[in-house]
Amino acid sequence: MASKEIHVVATFKPKADKIDDVAKILAESAANIHKKEPNTLRFYLLRPKKGNELIAVEKYADAGALKVHGGTEYFKAMIGKVTPLLAAPTDLKICNFVTGFEGRPSKL
Amino acid sequence: MASKEIHVVATFKPKADKIDDVAKILAESAANIHKKEPNTLRFYLLRPKKGNELIAVEKYADAGALKVHGGTEYFKAMIGKVTPLLAAPTDLKICNFVTGFEGRPSKL
Repeated sequence: MASKEIHVVATFKPKADKIDDVAKILAESAANIHKKEPNTLRFYLLRPKKGNELIAVEKYADAGALKVHGGTEYFKAMIGKVTPLLAAPTDLKICNFVTGFEGRPSKL
Repeated sequence: MASKEIHVVATFKPKADKIDDVAKILAESAANIHKKEPNTLRFYLLRPKKGNELIAVEKYADAGALKVHGGTEYFKAMIGKVTPLLAAPTDLKICNFVTGFEGRPSKL
């Protein structure tokens, strides 16, 4: 039976001088998510060594958890604050898990 | 002190009819990595619901672990098998962790 879990990879494209500001806003989001969204199972932010992007790696227990995430006041506030700081729209990829291991120790 | 860990997000762009073949080859890679690379702390494959891509989310204990990964025979064999099945070069992002939580339960 296919898993109900939903994975998201979101690539933010801040304006050249705004990447630290965007990272700070997303860090606030991460703290809210960690505290208030028990069914958001993973939410971390990566900064590629090259280029001007921030990548959020996310995992939700199910479609309901993703819906809760997108409906929160702090999510809407984050979008409001971040959007003017972006050079291009965020690349949002909603994904299914294919294979692999998500951490150690772990069964494959 | 900044973490030595290295995160990678690699987006594969298979030819339209080859995505399942690429997924299968990468699944073999994941099994090898899980078994033979104890310092590769995360390697899983996601398939966006839209488009024709596969995204590998990866985490290495340090630069040495990433080097070991890239030097293995099965990695080179995977590259050899996958490359002819791709429509465009793989988008490889080598990243630093910024913030967030990688799983539950977890401290932020």
